[in-house]
Amino acid sequence: MKIALYPGTFDPITNGHIDIIQRASELFDKIIVTVAVNPSKNPLFTAEERIELIRESLSQPKFEVSSFDGLVVDYAKKTDSIAIIRGLRAISDFEYEFQMALMNHKLAEDITTVFLMPNEKYTYLNSSIIRNLAQFHADVSDFVPPCVVDALKKKFPL
Amino acid sequence: MKIALYPGTFDPITNGHIDIIQRASELFDKIIVTVAVNPSKNPLFTAEERIELIRESLSQPKFEVSSFDGLVVDYAKKTDSIAIIRGLRAISDFEYEFQMALMNHKLAEDITTVFLMPNEKYTYLNSSIIRNLAQFHADVSDFVPPCVVDALKKKFPL
Amino acid sequence: MKIALYPGTFDPITNGHIDIIQRASELFDKIIVTVAVNPSKNPLFTAEERIELIRESLSQPKFEVSSFDGLVVDYAKKTDSIAIIRGLRAISDFEYEFQMALMNHKLAEDITTVFLMPNEKYTYLNSSIIRNLAQFHADVSDFVPPCVVDALKKKFPL
Amino acid sequence: MKIALYPGTFDPITNGHIDIIQRASELFDKIIVTVAVNPSKNPLFTAEERIELIRESLSQPKFEVSSFDGLVVDYAKKTDSIAIIRGLRAISDFEYEFQMALMNHKLAEDITTVFLMPNEKYTYLNSSIIRNLAQFHADVSDFVPPCVVDALKKKFPL
Amino acid sequence: MKIALYPGTFDPITNGHIDIIQRASELFDKIIVTVAVNPSKNPLFTAEERIELIRESLSQPKFEVSSFDGLVVDYAKKTDSIAIIRGLRAISDFEYEFQMALMNHKLAEDITTVFLMPNEKYTYLNSSIIRNLAQFHADVSDFVPPCVVDALKKKFPL
Amino acid sequence: MKIALYPGTFDPITNGHIDIIQRASELFDKIIVTVAVNPSKNPLFTAEERIELIRESLSQPKFEVSSFDGLVVDYAKKTDSIAIIRGLRAISDFEYEFQMALMNHKLAEDITTVFLMPNEKYTYLNSSIIRNLAQFHADVSDFVPPCVVDALKKKFPL
Repeated sequence: MKIALYPGTFDPITNGHIDIIQRASELFDKIIVTVAVNPSKNPLFTAEERIELIRESLSQPKFEVSSFDGLVVDYAKKTDSIAIIRGLRAISDFEYEFQMALMNHKLAEDITTVFLMPNEKYTYLNSSIIRNLAQFHADVSDFVPPCVVDALKKKFPL
Repeated sequence: MKIALYPGTFDPITNGHIDIIQRASELFDKIIVTVAVNPSKNPLFTAEERIELIRESLSQPKFEVSSFDGLVVDYAKKTDSIAIIRGLRAISDFEYEFQMALMNHKLAEDITTVFLMPNEKYTYLNSSIIRNLAQFHADVSDFVPPCVVDALKKKFPL
Repeated sequence: MKIALYPGTFDPITNGHIDIIQRASELFDKIIVTVAVNPSKNPLFTAEERIELIRESLSQPKFEVSSFDGLVVDYAKKTDSIAIIRGLRAISDFEYEFQMALMNHKLAEDITTVFLMPNEKYTYLNSSIIRNLAQFHADVSDFVPPCVVDALKKKFPL
Repeated sequence: MKIALYPGTFDPITNGHIDIIQRASELFDKIIVTVAVNPSKNPLFTAEERIELIRESLSQPKFEVSSFDGLVVDYAKKTDSIAIIRGLRAISDFEYEFQMALMNHKLAEDITTVFLMPNEKYTYLNSSIIRNLAQFHADVSDFVPPCVVDALKKKFPL
Repeated sequence: MKIALYPGTFDPITNGHIDIIQRASELFDKIIVTVAVNPSKNPLFTAEERIELIRESLSQPKFEVSSFDGLVVDYAKKTDSIAIIRGLRAISDFEYEFQMALMNHKLAEDITTVFLMPNEKYTYLNSSIIRNLAQFHADVSDFVPPCVVDALKKKFPL
Repeated sequence: MKIALYPGTFDPITNGHIDIIQRASELFDKIIVTVAVNPSKNPLFTAEERIELIRESLSQPKFEVSSFDGLVVDYAKKTDSIAIIRGLRAISDFEYEFQMALMNHKLAEDITTVFLMPNEKYTYLNSSIIRNLAQFHADVSDFVPPCVVDALKKKFPL
């Protein structure tokens, strides 16, 4: 069974992430979507909330949702993943992702980083913009799954 | 069986291409390496020579070598490929590849473009630089397989 | 009356160009869409054909269609344009456009280059990709106006 | 009357901003220069100070100066602006601006983002560099208007 | 004697920095490696520790190690440096470095910024990634000198 | 004596090139400005004309002017150069230059590529734009030395 790991902050998951996950699921037998827990960052949603929102958004048995701290390559080895999935949107993404992919390959030669591009309609989309829009009560229902719309409304009540 | 297509000009195949092909072979059950035949371009090696050099460089049964003209998504469908493999090296690559990936996805929604990054030691490498070096009889044996070294020596005799 | 010039090769005009022209028409009183005639290039459509395709695609009286050779700033002055419109899609565009904008500003300080971004669904679109698709008889009706679909079919008969 | 909005942090306004504002004033009938108030950021100058420095730098009746919080497209609608002006300097600008322009267009289809490039002599200039120079009492009188030179001297007394 | 200044944060020094320093030492008679002290940043190593780690890593008499605060061009003048050395790795580096080089040239016309590229095997390397790896006790001995390996182990005990 | 090589097409030499050469001359004892002769390209000026225009533009004894074909690293070795000088203007430059620098370093480890940035007023300047302007009899005297102005007038008579 070919397992791929899709690590991210997912604060919160967006339709762009879901597009990447669905593309990845055509290529691999199982996708582990995993929330990177970084104690030094101050996320809007807790790791538990983020995991729950991912689970609600992805109903297929092909997907497993988890969290991890530490190095992504260590977690990839532990989960028998042969690939790390990364979404690529823009140049600034590319630079950082290129650097991480090279370093991860150096640290674990047998794990390949696989870059997928989301649909062009998600080019402008990231979690930070969503948080910013939600803070001002803009309608984000075109950009995130319904459960995230609700969760954002609770975080930023009128 | 999950088939991936790796299209390119391969004029000639380099160690960077081979690195990408080997990474791809961990992810898919079969890789079709296919030479894009473009009548308006004037390659150093004929399509037949390029196919032959790829075949000599890749001995595993997992690899199939072919050529095609027309649209890459049409050839991907014809060969039952679920993915198109592209190597990513640098920003200029990225721009062009991003554009092609979006267009190909528009033309064939069920075929995913998968980007892989070669080892950092192949960052500087492309077929055009190899042709340029070989023209001045520089030693290219670190950059291309032995059969390509020989073929280049025949094209550019001392 | 505030006039803006939109120069380009338009070989052929695409829905991305039309999107830019319509955005520009909200900002200016008149838009002159002008075909750059470059004797050293070998376009698919003649300047006359390109002008005709632009005219058929844009029916509003607000648009004027012409051709020019020489320097774009000279033509802008001659037509009393206060701005040169340019569409921006991607990094490679950006570099070249930045350079041209700086040079044009040096040559004619009172003419401002105005950059507009097309809808994200045209991010992947340019005339060269359209010509390439049409050559292989792919369906391009989502990307160009109907008159261009017909003109391409005549250029590349089955 | 065609109104354009020029939003920014302006902490403080530089000659590069003023160059953009003057170019914009050739294209539109009125320019609203508006200070984005972001409670989570910690600016050098208060919103009131920033507004006052912009007012002192721009004496023409064509310019209106204000501040806003919330979404820029909401403020654009409220002020009957048909365009949002953005200065473009470099690639990193471009990426972020591209993303915001696409999102803003999604949120308010009838408001166009217009990108203008400052004179090449302002390529290296931004407010953060000015704050850094002023902190070490470097002479910044070539880069900012006289009232900003004075205000910086008060913030960083010898 | 031609003196060049190599300013940086060096938190901590990596093999990529050392590669740049050794290349620079072929071009200049003396290299001053200088730690930028920025009170508003919160480094892992103190300025004293960073200087000590650089000194241990570079044993040749051609190198001098120091620290500075204030403007780099002021420190360059004070040390009779004719050049400021900067390493270039990637696009994001490039943008920022380009901007700083232009500004520094504006502030001190007779000091030239010299950009050097490290070996491609250091493309993925920066101090921030090293700190991140060390925090999770990954083996960083391929990326930094032995004294830095030891210093990191003390900062992040098992 | 520290010798640096500045290779280029110089078709024709511009004030941007001269700015780079003068900066380089502060760093090295001798600069060899050398015209790359590429039989497959079709330059506006012959190699002899380009050499002559460079000689007229640079009167100091510190500069030597030559031409070469073959690999630049071979010519650098033959002339005892310890460095190859390259001007950096923009991202597209950067990509290509990065690739060439890595390849040249691979081919000749003891020759360092040194990147210098021209004054920001030459950001928009390259030989191709100059040829294009001259073809339409635009005034290029701000961008190239007087001898090049004259030579362009002879190539493009009114």
